[in-house]
Amino acid sequence: MQDLLQSALNPRSVAVIGASENIHKIGGRPIHYMGLHGFQGAIYPINPTRDEIQGHRSYASLSALPEVPELALVVVGGDKTVSAVEECAARGVKSAVIIASGFGETGPEGKEIEQHMLRTARSAGMRLYGPNTQGLANFGTGAIAGFSTMFIEVPPMDGPVGIVSQSGGMSAMAYGLLRGQGLGVRHVHATGNEVDVSVGELALAVAHDPDVKLLLLYLESIAHPDLLARAAAVARERDLPIVAVKAGRTAGGQRAASSHTGSLANEDRTVDAFLRQHGILRVRDPHEQVRAAKAYLKGWRPQGRRLVVISNSGASCVMGADAADDEKLALAELSPATQDDLAQKLPGFATTSNPIDITAALLTNSGLFGDVLPAVAKDPSADLFFINIPVAGAGYDVERFARDAAAFEAGTGKPVAVAAWQDSVASAFRAHGIATFANEGDAIGVLAQLARHTDLMRRPRTAPALATSPVQWPASGDRFLNEADSLALLGRHGVPVVSMHLCRTAGEAGAAFEQIRAGGQRVVMKACSRDIPHKSEHGLVALDVASPEEAEALFERFDHKMDALNASRDGVIVAAMHKGRHEFMVGAHMDPVFGPVIVVGDGGKYTEALNDCVVLLPPFSADDVTRELARLRIAPLFKGLRGEPALDIAALSRLTVAVADFAVAAKGQLASLDLNPVIVGSEGEGAVAVDALIEMRAGSA
Amino acid sequence: MQDLLQSALNPRSVAVIGASENIHKIGGRPIHYMGLHGFQGAIYPINPTRDEIQGHRSYASLSALPEVPELALVVVGGDKTVSAVEECAARGVKSAVIIASGFGETGPEGKEIEQHMLRTARSAGMRLYGPNTQGLANFGTGAIAGFSTMFIEVPPMDGPVGIVSQSGGMSAMAYGLLRGQGLGVRHVHATGNEVDVSVGELALAVAHDPDVKLLLLYLESIAHPDLLARAAAVARERDLPIVAVKAGRTAGGQRAASSHTGSLANEDRTVDAFLRQHGILRVRDPHEQVRAAKAYLKGWRPQGRRLVVISNSGASCVMGADAADDEKLALAELSPATQDDLAQKLPGFATTSNPIDITAALLTNSGLFGDVLPAVAKDPSADLFFINIPVAGAGYDVERFARDAAAFEAGTGKPVAVAAWQDSVASAFRAHGIATFANEGDAIGVLAQLARHTDLMRRPRTAPALATSPVQWPASGDRFLNEADSLALLGRHGVPVVSMHLCRTAGEAGAAFEQIRAGGQRVVMKACSRDIPHKSEHGLVALDVASPEEAEALFERFDHKMDALNASRDGVIVAAMHKGRHEFMVGAHMDPVFGPVIVVGDGGKYTEALNDCVVLLPPFSADDVTRELARLRIAPLFKGLRGEPALDIAALSRLTVAVADFAVAAKGQLASLDLNPVIVGSEGEGAVAVDALIEMRAGSA
Repeated sequence: MQDLLQSALNPRSVAVIGASENIHKIGGRPIHYMGLHGFQGAIYPINPTRDEIQGHRSYASLSALPEVPELALVVVGGDKTVSAVEECAARGVKSAVIIASGFGETGPEGKEIEQHMLRTARSAGMRLYGPNTQGLANFGTGAIAGFSTMFIEVPPMDGPVGIVSQSGGMSAMAYGLLRGQGLGVRHVHATGNEVDVSVGELALAVAHDPDVKLLLLYLESIAHPDLLARAAAVARERDLPIVAVKAGRTAGGQRAASSHTGSLANEDRTVDAFLRQHGILRVRDPHEQVRAAKAYLKGWRPQGRRLVVISNSGASCVMGADAADDEKLALAELSPATQDDLAQKLPGFATTSNPIDITAALLTNSGLFGDVLPAVAKDPSADLFFINIPVAGAGYDVERFARDAAAFEAGTGKPVAVAAWQDSVASAFRAHGIATFANEGDAIGVLAQLARHTDLMRRPRTAPALATSPVQWPASGDRFLNEADSLALLGRHGVPVVSMHLCRTAGEAGAAFEQIRAGGQRVVMKACSRDIPHKSEHGLVALDVASPEEAEALFERFDHKMDALNASRDGVIVAAMHKGRHEFMVGAHMDPVFGPVIVVGDGGKYTEALNDCVVLLPPFSADDVTRELARLRIAPLFKGLRGEPALDIAALSRLTVAVADFAVAAKGQLASLDLNPVIVGSEGEGAVAVDALIEMRAGSA
Repeated sequence: MQDLLQSALNPRSVAVIGASENIHKIGGRPIHYMGLHGFQGAIYPINPTRDEIQGHRSYASLSALPEVPELALVVVGGDKTVSAVEECAARGVKSAVIIASGFGETGPEGKEIEQHMLRTARSAGMRLYGPNTQGLANFGTGAIAGFSTMFIEVPPMDGPVGIVSQSGGMSAMAYGLLRGQGLGVRHVHATGNEVDVSVGELALAVAHDPDVKLLLLYLESIAHPDLLARAAAVARERDLPIVAVKAGRTAGGQRAASSHTGSLANEDRTVDAFLRQHGILRVRDPHEQVRAAKAYLKGWRPQGRRLVVISNSGASCVMGADAADDEKLALAELSPATQDDLAQKLPGFATTSNPIDITAALLTNSGLFGDVLPAVAKDPSADLFFINIPVAGAGYDVERFARDAAAFEAGTGKPVAVAAWQDSVASAFRAHGIATFANEGDAIGVLAQLARHTDLMRRPRTAPALATSPVQWPASGDRFLNEADSLALLGRHGVPVVSMHLCRTAGEAGAAFEQIRAGGQRVVMKACSRDIPHKSEHGLVALDVASPEEAEALFERFDHKMDALNASRDGVIVAAMHKGRHEFMVGAHMDPVFGPVIVVGDGGKYTEALNDCVVLLPPFSADDVTRELARLRIAPLFKGLRGEPALDIAALSRLTVAVADFAVAAKGQLASLDLNPVIVGSEGEGAVAVDALIEMRAGSA
């Protein structure tokens, strides 16, 4: 990977195994395209039935070539694919692109053949692309090891956008949509089944291309988050925005992805957290992905979310204000000076507050637009501008409006988006290079996207020092640690946990009761057994124990119950009932791809059903946790309501960081941990885990 | 209104006050349009400076006309508007359309002038349209009392769509977008400031037009919900879908609406409930409003939500499955027979489950599409079909695909939506009359919209008998009824309320304690004062009272505290602590426009902050409440989790109906009522209000 995949993206020579004279066949297209797009290296068609193909000398086999090609494009299918790969590896080819389908996406047998090809390649130091791919295309070098029909439908033009996609269809679609906007595209790479090179690794290579100013990704699974994270880091360093579609968000989508590219499912909320954490903006589909391309390429990186809405339609002003709210943009409050200025320029019944309704008076005074815009441009309270022209036509000097808008944009340097559904109006604005959309939802959506993405990209990335102390696991051969062991272990790793007595006899339980009561606290008792993760469902929790006698009786009852359940009898916990204000939950589990995943949210009995939680991937800081927690539905409770003090969310955030530290340290052995409830008090009172359950990885205990 | 506004929509004669020879002026356009669109009635230009206008004899004044015109279009502005309206009224004109702006939307003075015009018209039995409107246009009769520029930009064609809009701009935009889809439009009416005739009343008239098959509304305020409800009832009876934009959803939008059409703000969740209750589908903007027009006009009314996704791109299958889930559509499970059939028709590596990936093999076998579709058409498990062609072009027989799709649609009679972003592909499908969209979000969104709207329209509308017993208000001159009076009053009206003792002395409190304890229940005490709505914030609630002595002491403490707070000392409530499983809230308030509004949701201390509630407008049935409650975020708890029994949601729903009955009966005097908590037990255990607060209307007590 040190060479950033140069043997594929910028090869000195390309062999096409299965080359064709017919430029509409898969074996003919790449040769045709390389000729068209100025590839400077050597092209070697391989086809034993011909001497010449598309003007190039054709060879019978790889071994007949005058040199070992850097890149081989394997167009032949089935068994021939495998032998072609074997021959490439044997000859010392550096990269092979495998077009054929019918491998990993069809099931275990196909996956085994893929693995065989991968082993063959690895042992020879060769990199593989595909199989089941449309191939690679670099319009900067003219190295087109792909066959997309779209390059015929919409003529290529080199430009500042890179596309890396698991799906050939989606790379073609994004390419076509961008070209339809008049934008140039440099890279159009598809990775298919990703037996070796993944979207992440290609993204890393493309992110190093200094001419690329916008990078679009389509993913069906993330197999190598580390590579994608590195690509994102390089991109952020360069202020290069990455906009990604990760399909297979739902169970139905994941099933479809499995038969499409043989993808393994990722947990979607983990994907979300990963992309957000790395400053990659996630969108729904290729349409949404290309929608903001022009705006990104203008270099707009808004620092705020205060929007000005300007329209010649009052109704559009109303809907613009509504849409701003939908997108969590604020309506900028224009300064009195701006409003005075507007009042002098607009007719009496027009509005000088934001939204600015310049009314149908625009029909009789075509200069109004040009009068109004400079007045607003000066206002420091505005970050984003939205101009909506829902009605124009005969009598309107649309060309002048567009000119005025372009001058305004140039003057402010701030993002300006225009909505105009009439082609005659939109084309006038587009001709002046203005980011113009058919509908107001898209226009405002793009402005909001720029603000959101800039925030994601520029967010400080703290990497708190991780606890390096190795985990001292209690001796146990079981899958679950019991509550006492779980709490003790986490406590040793800096997680605030409730103090408790693990009692082995009724007498100990009575004594523990006395001791806690002497401290003025109420007493709770819980059976402790690694075999009973959900104690309360078995009646093995007692709140507000009244006397030492009751404590002793409860001990006996719990002990018998554990025995009756055939469960390990690890003792009975006697603890102080913990006061606090709200029950949260903090959990961690090991994702096979992403590693430790931390979940924090509303706790209690109904945590799963209510599903009000956020996901973070270590490393993260307490501030990161606090920021994410603000997205919870229960977040309005944090500040304290109806005279209550605020909750100690800072303590919950610190506790979560400690849990993450533990999960990272315990990575090899830990399957999951669940702290529920974590009781959070008022500001300054802290957060404490009062129940814990640790699950070990199978075979690691 | 008996005449359904025929004097405006189908007048025998039209006078244009302020007529112009120039067809680009407001006074010239309507005369021009009526000539173009075959208006059969008499046209009377009124302009004292000319003898003839656009070939019609021009008159100096209304009094000079040979007959009293049915409709007068008032184009003159300012003071002349008012005198024109006065003259129309004096002469016996039946309808006047007032174009000029500068009235109610500018403030109180303008509103007063509007009211003067309204009084003048009312006293003469004349109806007013506007002011501040673009006017009316009926392409069925050719009566165009409007001046929209859009009728020049996009030539009109009579057709099955009606548009009624408060905003001229939005009516023009919807009109233009529909015409751009090739659809004909009969009605394009704008109501502006709605001093008299509102969108609701015009909608009622248009809903009676048997040729109208789709009705689109744009509203900035709903001033006459009764008329809109009648329009919706007529429409449902006729199976006529109504799709509405109600702008001014947010605080910013409402401010903008006030300066646009002088609209008063409606509470948005009440608007939502009203529209839903009447089967009107609410959408965000005119683009979303016209998006499904073609699909509606095909008469599709799907009875289910099971979607089949078909594509030649595997990635599109993945994203189609994801998008289905976003739109709450289910992926249809194809029968084994269908899958067998597909397996024989598709290449080996294609998928025969849903989504159906016909793969790029479509490129080499153009018949695949036509082979696959009939196999799926027969499957009874499918309600909706989505075909996505994200990649086609050279080598693809797109014309054949389109023909096959059209045959398929004709064969199934079920909704089929196609997504194709390439113009060449989309136009082939459109030429075959297929509902074709540029992106998959729109295509699937339209299918989901049809299913949702059909459900809304066909939902049984029960009108439960309302309690007719008049409310016996307790004697009190205060704004708030105290808790005891509130509970007692509601209890008399059939709302299940907690039984309690209102004690006037410490001795009564002690005795009440003994009585409740004798029944084996725990005891709660609360101060009772109409002046203290939030008792717990003043420490005036005590749970789990331990002894008669404590009860007596608490009585004294609460009594003193009420005294110290200078509040009315209405006694102290001693009640059984009510067991139950979850705390809900049920509230009611009087909306100045919509009347009683009922709110039900998650209860407890944080009701407002967590805002998990639904809104209903009486009359409604218990089943209606249960259906709406299923939309709450806490709805997953209803069925009972982790071994618990289900909650008695039916009892909560019945309680809510009883509250609605009371609110309707108490309409004149009630300002609001708040039951929180309403404690709901397990199924069969019922729901009971344990706290209540009734607020009277100012001046009604």
